[in-house]
Amino acid sequence: MHDLLIRNAIVVTGDAAGTVHPAGGLAVSDGVIDIVGNTDGISARETVDAGGMILIPGLVNAHCHAADSLFRGLVEDLPLEPWLQTVWKAEAAILNRETCELGATLGLAELVLGGVTTTLDMFWHPEATVAAARRLGVRVGTGGIFFDAPGTDGATPASRAEAAEAFFTAHRDAPDIIPGTFPHGTYTVGPEGLKTAKAIADRHDALFHTHAAETEFEQADITRRYGRSVIRHLDALGLLDRRTLLAHCVWLDDEEIALLARSGTAVVHNPVSNLKLASGIARIPDLLAAGIPVALGTDGAISGNDLDLWMALRLAATLHKGATRRADAVTTHQAFAMATLTGARALGAEDRIGSLEPGKAADMVLISTDRAHAVPLFDPLTHLVYSTAKSDVVHVWVGGEAVVRDGGLVRHDLRETMAAVRDLTPAIAASIA
Amino acid sequence: MHDLLIRNAIVVTGDAAGTVHPAGGLAVSDGVIDIVGNTDGISARETVDAGGMILIPGLVNAHCHAADSLFRGLVEDLPLEPWLQTVWKAEAAILNRETCELGATLGLAELVLGGVTTTLDMFWHPEATVAAARRLGVRVGTGGIFFDAPGTDGATPASRAEAAEAFFTAHRDAPDIIPGTFPHGTYTVGPEGLKTAKAIADRHDALFHTHAAETEFEQADITRRYGRSVIRHLDALGLLDRRTLLAHCVWLDDEEIALLARSGTAVVHNPVSNLKLASGIARIPDLLAAGIPVALGTDGAISGNDLDLWMALRLAATLHKGATRRADAVTTHQAFAMATLTGARALGAEDRIGSLEPGKAADMVLISTDRAHAVPLFDPLTHLVYSTAKSDVVHVWVGGEAVVRDGGLVRHDLRETMAAVRDLTPAIAASIA
Repeated sequence: MHDLLIRNAIVVTGDAAGTVHPAGGLAVSDGVIDIVGNTDGISARETVDAGGMILIPGLVNAHCHAADSLFRGLVEDLPLEPWLQTVWKAEAAILNRETCELGATLGLAELVLGGVTTTLDMFWHPEATVAAARRLGVRVGTGGIFFDAPGTDGATPASRAEAAEAFFTAHRDAPDIIPGTFPHGTYTVGPEGLKTAKAIADRHDALFHTHAAETEFEQADITRRYGRSVIRHLDALGLLDRRTLLAHCVWLDDEEIALLARSGTAVVHNPVSNLKLASGIARIPDLLAAGIPVALGTDGAISGNDLDLWMALRLAATLHKGATRRADAVTTHQAFAMATLTGARALGAEDRIGSLEPGKAADMVLISTDRAHAVPLFDPLTHLVYSTAKSDVVHVWVGGEAVVRDGGLVRHDLRETMAAVRDLTPAIAASIA
Repeated sequence: MHDLLIRNAIVVTGDAAGTVHPAGGLAVSDGVIDIVGNTDGISARETVDAGGMILIPGLVNAHCHAADSLFRGLVEDLPLEPWLQTVWKAEAAILNRETCELGATLGLAELVLGGVTTTLDMFWHPEATVAAARRLGVRVGTGGIFFDAPGTDGATPASRAEAAEAFFTAHRDAPDIIPGTFPHGTYTVGPEGLKTAKAIADRHDALFHTHAAETEFEQADITRRYGRSVIRHLDALGLLDRRTLLAHCVWLDDEEIALLARSGTAVVHNPVSNLKLASGIARIPDLLAAGIPVALGTDGAISGNDLDLWMALRLAATLHKGATRRADAVTTHQAFAMATLTGARALGAEDRIGSLEPGKAADMVLISTDRAHAVPLFDPLTHLVYSTAKSDVVHVWVGGEAVVRDGGLVRHDLRETMAAVRDLTPAIAASIA
């Protein structure tokens, strides 16, 4: 007897072969997928008739600052560097452990309502992110942040290293947490801080995640400071390998792409943020051609201004066609993988999440096909990449547990969170006045 | 006594000055707006308490082929020219008066559910588009199509001119129809056909709408045939003026931009389609700087693959920031105007639609703010451009009549249309097999 059976679905497994079961099902026991495809004759304690909906793996958002949702729309029409100065002013005035948890709850709620079951989140007070994730029932990758200046949490470099270690001690074996170290970037963390963060991650065979080569200004700044570009700087410090994931990588030359490819480093593409902040258009087709694992991220809602991984997916699939004028610059399959299996690989979690395969966690999403934009439906993968909207997400499970039903959160009353954010809004607005 | 009063709304009027009433209302009599802003003490036969939702003008989609929704997702990963050859094969096999009406109903339903109250639509059998629009209660701009080859309707150039004239006779005074002439493009319609179409439009002081400079290939093709680029060709034929609206204009040099600006020609930007078909990125900031009215379009769902004007709006506001690396390349105000007042101007209908102002038709949309991505909300215009999704549309009125209530169509059962399209789907798939 299985715990959960989903039947009568178009199952888009998201596995490496791109397997689709046009009329299939999936069975779950103890939170783990045990059957995918033909579920005839199977019985379970709970059966969900999907009624022709599309069943997909829970999406992986590989770069986010969920709590920054508190500042959504506050600072507009500025490029990254002056924008960051204003954002940091607001963060310093508003953020503490409690408001970080409030913001993370808002951000992770928006994400899971859109079918994102795992989010890699870089932010102050990572324990607040963990608390928010557990309230909602989603997975997060997070951990100690590194930032040479005191930052909004007032920590010192030494106390940051201690906190990063303590995060592993607390969450090393938690099935819902993917721990790592999160230095902010080469322009805010010096070589010692970066190496410390990497050493801690390596000690736990864990993820090292940082911003890299987001803007032309950043490349020039790092080259001026260190006599080498961002990627060469990271390479010279010994920080590029299969457990390193770099956010953005908009500004890369051919040699830097080769460096990333040789080292096995993964990249997370954030097209919505890169466009809005005028950072540029990343060379994603070249990264893919070089064999670099490219994941997909929303970045924070402060540079979005939402957390819509479906919009990021659509852009990942279309932006590079337009920019390179090659209609196959990024294929439908490549784009979908960015948001699922390659995202899981980038987080070092492809053994557990990212596709619907026996033995993986039952993180999954049912997508309505009963919408004007879902007919006709010739190919489910094409539909997912080019037509599906976040509002098509009906049910979401994480580890076999329902966390979204009929488009609403199961475990948490979102109205409470929205009311608390509205109460805080005047103070946020005043923080940069 | 007014017919309809909407109160307790954030009213984003979309007028030229960008007027916003943070706690306002709007009153309607005989389908026309008569009060905007302070509605204290006003009474009406029907009162809607907006409960803090955002009231905006009905959106204007200035370039569409609604019935092409029948082919959504059928032909993928090809650039425009080979893509068109396959699309035309499918259209020839499937389209007739009846299927055009079915497809137009599907497309216009998707649009109005997303808050689009007026659509400029270029397609075979324009009377089918009119019938679909009237079933749903929305406005369309459409009229006789021109295409030198027989096309799927089997018409000849002479019968096309007659049909175009007959369209004006039938709809000249209809408040819900914006009649015009619609030659397909310079590569499918020769100089005589273009001039005939323009002469008919001019005789009725009406819109002339065609595809222009969508791809680099098209520019080279027209230059080879006529010894001048698309825009210079149109100019030499005397076709550029204030009643001309050109779709796409991705490939323009500085002199062509100056030609458009001097002549008062308007342009409709279709970023979703231009990216997906690998056409390129239009020089929208340069068009705006030259004073050219730039409207916004979805293009057809066959190149989309949906009809989401909100996604087009987000891209209009962000794509050019990324492409030019200027964070103010297209401002929030400019982007919103593309989808509202400038769209109305491009259709020659700015006296009637495109903004919430006394004397204009009561075409309006209420947008929910009760969503995770709508808090905090510092500035309603920023929220509309960078955070709002089509699924936030709650109620839609056209000429004071409710056509969408609580996210559902008022006049038509969409399930019937979706069922009919599903029945047709195997034949559509077989048409290109």
